[in-house]
Amino acid sequence: MIKEGDLVQLKDSKNSFIFKVKKGETLGTHKGNINHDEIIGLKYGDLIKSHKGNEFLILKPTLYEIIMNGIKRKTQIIYPKDSAYITLKLGITDGMKVLESGIGSGALTIVMANAVKPMGKIYGYEKEKSYIDLVKENLKLTNLEKYVSLFHHDLSEKLPEDYFDAGFIDVKYPHEYLENIKLSLKNGAMVGFLLPTANQVITLIEKLEKLNFLQIEVKELLLRNYKPIPERFRPDDRMVAHTGYLIFARKGV
Amino acid sequence: MIKEGDLVQLKDSKNSFIFKVKKGETLGTHKGNINHDEIIGLKYGDLIKSHKGNEFLILKPTLYEIIMNGIKRKTQIIYPKDSAYITLKLGITDGMKVLESGIGSGALTIVMANAVKPMGKIYGYEKEKSYIDLVKENLKLTNLEKYVSLFHHDLSEKLPEDYFDAGFIDVKYPHEYLENIKLSLKNGAMVGFLLPTANQVITLIEKLEKLNFLQIEVKELLLRNYKPIPERFRPDDRMVAHTGYLIFARKGV
Amino acid sequence: MIKEGDLVQLKDSKNSFIFKVKKGETLGTHKGNINHDEIIGLKYGDLIKSHKGNEFLILKPTLYEIIMNGIKRKTQIIYPKDSAYITLKLGITDGMKVLESGIGSGALTIVMANAVKPMGKIYGYEKEKSYIDLVKENLKLTNLEKYVSLFHHDLSEKLPEDYFDAGFIDVKYPHEYLENIKLSLKNGAMVGFLLPTANQVITLIEKLEKLNFLQIEVKELLLRNYKPIPERFRPDDRMVAHTGYLIFARKGV
Amino acid sequence: MIKEGDLVQLKDSKNSFIFKVKKGETLGTHKGNINHDEIIGLKYGDLIKSHKGNEFLILKPTLYEIIMNGIKRKTQIIYPKDSAYITLKLGITDGMKVLESGIGSGALTIVMANAVKPMGKIYGYEKEKSYIDLVKENLKLTNLEKYVSLFHHDLSEKLPEDYFDAGFIDVKYPHEYLENIKLSLKNGAMVGFLLPTANQVITLIEKLEKLNFLQIEVKELLLRNYKPIPERFRPDDRMVAHTGYLIFARKGV
Repeated sequence: MIKEGDLVQLKDSKNSFIFKVKKGETLGTHKGNINHDEIIGLKYGDLIKSHKGNEFLILKPTLYEIIMNGIKRKTQIIYPKDSAYITLKLGITDGMKVLESGIGSGALTIVMANAVKPMGKIYGYEKEKSYIDLVKENLKLTNLEKYVSLFHHDLSEKLPEDYFDAGFIDVKYPHEYLENIKLSLKNGAMVGFLLPTANQVITLIEKLEKLNFLQIEVKELLLRNYKPIPERFRPDDRMVAHTGYLIFARKGV
Repeated sequence: MIKEGDLVQLKDSKNSFIFKVKKGETLGTHKGNINHDEIIGLKYGDLIKSHKGNEFLILKPTLYEIIMNGIKRKTQIIYPKDSAYITLKLGITDGMKVLESGIGSGALTIVMANAVKPMGKIYGYEKEKSYIDLVKENLKLTNLEKYVSLFHHDLSEKLPEDYFDAGFIDVKYPHEYLENIKLSLKNGAMVGFLLPTANQVITLIEKLEKLNFLQIEVKELLLRNYKPIPERFRPDDRMVAHTGYLIFARKGV
Repeated sequence: MIKEGDLVQLKDSKNSFIFKVKKGETLGTHKGNINHDEIIGLKYGDLIKSHKGNEFLILKPTLYEIIMNGIKRKTQIIYPKDSAYITLKLGITDGMKVLESGIGSGALTIVMANAVKPMGKIYGYEKEKSYIDLVKENLKLTNLEKYVSLFHHDLSEKLPEDYFDAGFIDVKYPHEYLENIKLSLKNGAMVGFLLPTANQVITLIEKLEKLNFLQIEVKELLLRNYKPIPERFRPDDRMVAHTGYLIFARKGV
Repeated sequence: MIKEGDLVQLKDSKNSFIFKVKKGETLGTHKGNINHDEIIGLKYGDLIKSHKGNEFLILKPTLYEIIMNGIKRKTQIIYPKDSAYITLKLGITDGMKVLESGIGSGALTIVMANAVKPMGKIYGYEKEKSYIDLVKENLKLTNLEKYVSLFHHDLSEKLPEDYFDAGFIDVKYPHEYLENIKLSLKNGAMVGFLLPTANQVITLIEKLEKLNFLQIEVKELLLRNYKPIPERFRPDDRMVAHTGYLIFARKGV
C-alpha cells in the first residue's frame, strides 16, 4: 500500500514522472492532473486516471530511473553504465566502509550506498559545500541517507588511517592526494578513479606505480543504444562517446 | 581473523590464487608452497611467504574476481560489464524476488543474489540439470547460497503468478515463453534479456510489443581495456567485440 | 597560378570557405570581404588579406573537404570513413566501369569517379530526378563530370548485361533488384551495399546466398574523434554511432 | 585475355590464392593442382578446374586483397580501414608528389601510389634497408612500381624543400623531424601521422601547434565485422581494438 512520503513513478507509453507522495498535492501534466491523495492506498502496479481520463501505471522507480530522471544535477554525473561497473569492480558490498571523493551530484553515492547497506557506509568527502547539500537532497529520494556520511573536506586534509575497505576518487588531480588516500585505505583495498583525459590517466598511473599500488587497470565502457523497432532494428544515430577513463588498483603493502 | 572455510585470494604482482582455507591443505605454486594452516589467524591485507620465500598479499576476493577467476564454467558466462549493468537497470535490491532463467554457470546469479540480500531471493529456473549442480558449487564460494533457490524447470512449465519483482531471461528463444514469464511478473516489474543475434532481438521485441510490455530498450556494452603503462598509454590491440544485446522492458497491465 | 573557374578554399584558424573563382565576384565573410579578382594569379599556399586586414590561406580543397563542406545535400550522404573504405574494398581503380544506384547527393560518386579516372566511368542510376540535377551540380565543383554518366532509371528496369567491373547499391530494398544487378555485373565483380537496419542486411544476405554470390562480408566502421588539445587529450563527448552496415560480395558464376 | 605475368586470384567458396602467372609453373593446393599454362588465354571471371576436378573462379585481385593476402610483411601493416581513410583525408590524387616515411611493408604505399597515378609519385623515405627491398617486391605484385621512388634515408637528413603536395609519416618520434618535414611540404599541404600511444599523440600535437600547423585533428577508426549468416546475424566475438591514432594537419605559412 502506497503511503504519504513514498516515492512513485507514473508512467504511460511516453511519459515518466518521479515524485514523493504528499497529501494535498497535485501533479500537473499535459495529459491531465492527478491528486496525490488518490495515489495513497493504491499499490505499485495499479493504474490511475488523470482528470482528463488518461491512464498511468504507478511504479516504484528503480535507482537507475531515480539517477537518470529523479535527482537534481549541478555536475556531470557518473552514469549507470559506469557506476554499476565501478561498484562491482571495487567489490562494494554489505558492511564495507567506502571512501568517496568528490561526490558531485551523488549519482555514484546512491549506487554504492545501496550496495553497502544495511551494515556499511559511504564516507563522502567534498570540498564544494553546495554539492553536499545537493547530495543530501538527492539521497532523500532514495531513502539511503543513513548509509552515507558527508564531510566538507578537501582531500589534502587528514583522513582516518587504515580505515576504508574501498575507495572511489573523482577529482581533477587525484595524484596530488594519493599518499593521503593510500594511508586511509586498508591493505589490499581496491580503489577506483574516473578521469576524462589521457594526460590525467598517465600522471595517475605513474604515481600509482610509485606508491606500490598493485594490479593497475584502465578501462572504458561504451554504451550503444539501439532503436527497439522490430521492423527496423538498428543502432541509434548518435551516442555518448566518452564519459571518462576508469582506473582501478589495489593498495599494496 | 581468517578462519577455516574463509575465502582468500593470494596475490603478488603477477599471480592470483582464489581458494577456501582448509586445515591441513597446501597451496602449490611455482613461487613455492603455502600451508593453509599458516593463513588461519592472519588478517586480510597481511603478507605471507611461501616456502621459497616469495611474498603474497592475502586478500578477500571481490565478487568480480570470484566470477572472473574463481568459479567453474560450463557455459559462456555473463561478464561483469553486463551483469553489473543488468542488476542496476533492473533495479535489483534488498528484499526483491527475482526470476532468473537459465542460470548457466551462475555468474549473473551471484551478482543479483548479492544485491537482493538479506531479505530477497533469486529464483533460478534451469532445464539443464548439470548447470544447477554447477551453480550450487559456484555459489558456495560466495556464501550467497541462502539467497538463491534453484529449480530444475523448463520455462514452458507453470511459474508462480504475479510473484516476481523483476526477471532476467537468458535462453535461446525467450519469445516462446513470454506469456508465461509475463504472468509470473508483478505489474510494472522490469525484465531483461540477453541475446546474441539481431534476429533473436527482432523476434523478442515484436512479442514484447504484442504483450504490451512498456518502455522497451535495447543496449549493448563495449568494454575497452587500455595498457596501463604510463610511458605508452594506449588501448589493447584486441577486444571482446560482442557478448550480447541487452533488452529491457517493464510489464504493462 | 589560380585562374577563373578554379576551386579554392580560404582558411584561417577557424573558418573555411570553398568556392569557384569568378571575375568580378566578392566573398563576404564576418572577417571582411575578398574580391575574387585578387585571387586570380596567386598560387595555392599563398596568403590573402580581407578588406579588414584578416589573413586567409588559399588552398586547393581536397575531395574530403568538398564532400564535407562544399557540396549541397538533399539526402544523408555517405561519409568519407565509409566512401574511402568502400572504394578500396571494391577495388575501384583506373579504367573500371562502375554501377552506382542510388546516387543521393553524389558524395560516394565523387570518390569513386576520382578513382576510375582517366579511363573508367561511374554509371549512376537514380529514380529521383532531382538528385540527378543535384549530383551534376556537385560534380562540377570537382571537375569529375566527364567520368560520370547519370541515368534517370529505376533498378527494376533493364541494365546493360555482363558490363560492370564493380557496383555499389544504396537503395532501400536492394534484394528486390538483385537478379537484375547480378546480370549487369561481370563474373567475379565485387558489389557493395549500404543498409541502415539489421533487418535489411538479413534479407539481403539471404538473397545474396540464394543467387550464389561469393565471399559475403558485413562490416561497420566507427569513427572516433579526439580533442586535439595536448594538455587535455581525450575523445569527443559525442560521436556518430551508426551510418550503416556495409555489405560486400563477389558475383559467382 | 590473361597472359604471362598477370596477377590472378583463384577463389572457391573457402580458399583464395594470389599469384603471378608464369609459363611452366604449377599451383599446388589441397583441392588439386592447376597449371599456370591453362590459365593463360582465359579471361577474368572464367572458371578453371584443378586436376582433382574442383572448380575455381579466376579473378583479378583487388588492391585490398593484395594488401591483406598477397604482400609479404616484415612489419605491422597499415590496414585498409586506415589506408583508405588516410588517402582520402590527405586528398591524395592524380599528379601529386607525396612524402611517405617510414614505408614498412608498403601497404599504405600501394594505396597511395594507386591514387597518384598516372602523373604523380610517392617518395618513400625509409632508414631500414630491408624494408625498401620488401616494398619493391610487394609493389611488383601491383604494377605500381613506376609511381614510387624509394630512398634509403633517415628523416633527420635533408629533404627536398617546398616540394611535396602531401605527406604521411609513420615513424616512432615524428616530432623530432617535424621542422624538416615542414620544410619539405608546400604551403597548405596536408600531412598525416599514425601513432599507437596517447603519449606520442600529445607530444606530436604540441609540436604541430608550435610550428603553426593548421587544422589539427585526431581520429581513430574502428572496424566491426559481423557474421554474415542470415539466421544468426551478429557481430563477431572479437575485434581489432586499436591499430593507431590518426593525426592530420595542414602546413600553415
